[in-house]
Amino acid sequence: MLSDTRTNAGVDNIATFCKMHVFENPQERMIALMTSGNLAISQAVVSLLNDGVEFGESGKPETLYSVPSMFRAAQLVSEAVRQTYNVHKEAMQSQGVSFEVGMMLGGQIKGREMRLYQVYSAGNFIEATEDTPFLQLGEHKYGKPILDRAVTYDVHPHDAIKLALVSMDSTLRSNLSVGMPLDLLVYGRDALCVAIRRRIHEDDPYFRQVRDYWSTALREAYQRLPRPDWARE
Amino acid sequence: MLSDTRTNAGVDNIATFCKMHVFENPQERMIALMTSGNLAISQAVVSLLNDGVEFGESGKPETLYSVPSMFRAAQLVSEAVRQTYNVHKEAMQSQGVSFEVGMMLGGQIKGREMRLYQVYSAGNFIEATEDTPFLQLGEHKYGKPILDRAVTYDVHPHDAIKLALVSMDSTLRSNLSVGMPLDLLVYGRDALCVAIRRRIHEDDPYFRQVRDYWSTALREAYQRLPRPDWARE
Repeated sequence: MLSDTRTNAGVDNIATFCKMHVFENPQERMIALMTSGNLAISQAVVSLLNDGVEFGESGKPETLYSVPSMFRAAQLVSEAVRQTYNVHKEAMQSQGVSFEVGMMLGGQIKGREMRLYQVYSAGNFIEATEDTPFLQLGEHKYGKPILDRAVTYDVHPHDAIKLALVSMDSTLRSNLSVGMPLDLLVYGRDALCVAIRRRIHEDDPYFRQVRDYWSTALREAYQRLPRPDWARE
Repeated sequence: MLSDTRTNAGVDNIATFCKMHVFENPQERMIALMTSGNLAISQAVVSLLNDGVEFGESGKPETLYSVPSMFRAAQLVSEAVRQTYNVHKEAMQSQGVSFEVGMMLGGQIKGREMRLYQVYSAGNFIEATEDTPFLQLGEHKYGKPILDRAVTYDVHPHDAIKLALVSMDSTLRSNLSVGMPLDLLVYGRDALCVAIRRRIHEDDPYFRQVRDYWSTALREAYQRLPRPDWARE
């Protein structure tokens, strides 16, 4: 999982906030949540998840530390989004502000499968599958072509890191509302704890290497491509 | 210039229309116009340009065959967009349909410079410069990263053809409202006639070669990229 840290209320009002939240109980569960959309809303959802969401018939507050499965975790995030909507919809509508929030939820609980979900503003959610093994939140278009062409279900984690950084670099170059530093999280199946959690700043040597290498590689690639035989010298 | 041919009124209602129009008087002028947005509007603008637009104090209808400069051509397209808006705005507003149209205008008139303009829905327009030597119409995000990284003001026309096709391929893969066949036009400075005009179909051997080559090149490129030294084996 890779997130940027830029939030904005217009191009003249930007700030840095972490959009990646980790709910980890090593050897028992590792759940990570990335957020996008309206910052006040996504912070409200995360606060609610931390406090505990009253959910289901028991009426007992649940958190991402107590849910028994990732599916239940996705339902909990969905419920938190819907409760937040119910609290804020009227005031937001009266100001003409749309309720926009997106969440990505990934991880594993002991004895269960690793799962990856995307939760929309309405609280509905989808899961990544072997056919579509990656999901994107927020500004997704600039960074999608490289993922479409290169990401497979069995991609090596090291290659996945490279591809996520290349994809994010494409987005950073084109959308001012996406900004450094980046937050990277890597989780390995059945580890039940975070493998890598790293903040990547503008001057990170590896990120700079990726940027320079990728621009050079693309230039060399199209130059090696033969010209069409219907184009005269 | 490269355009697709897909138009749609919903995913269950698609059709093929040429979006590239050429106004050529060999040895005297070559002007090409690409259109995007609402098809009824863009066809209305092109028809008006063909019939002649009453413009300026003389009141004499002008066409893209009569304007004395590319700047005047851009003003004429702008005026045609505004006149079309005035005719249709009321009926469209009453149906809740927004007036969306985009035009790209490129070419050269004898004794003048080669120019490239983009005209927006409001009739305002911008020109490509040495700093930003390419322009995009319509669905532009998926195809932009490769152009950002590789297109320079002095790119060779053969390389520009390759890059335009790679960029369009990225867009075709991600947006159903963009579809084959493609229309390609190449113009060489001071030629005053079209160098290449070619319709590229799904089974075009060169386009298939570009697609396959590019996917392979990207895969090889990220695999060659060293893994971060902070990622364990």
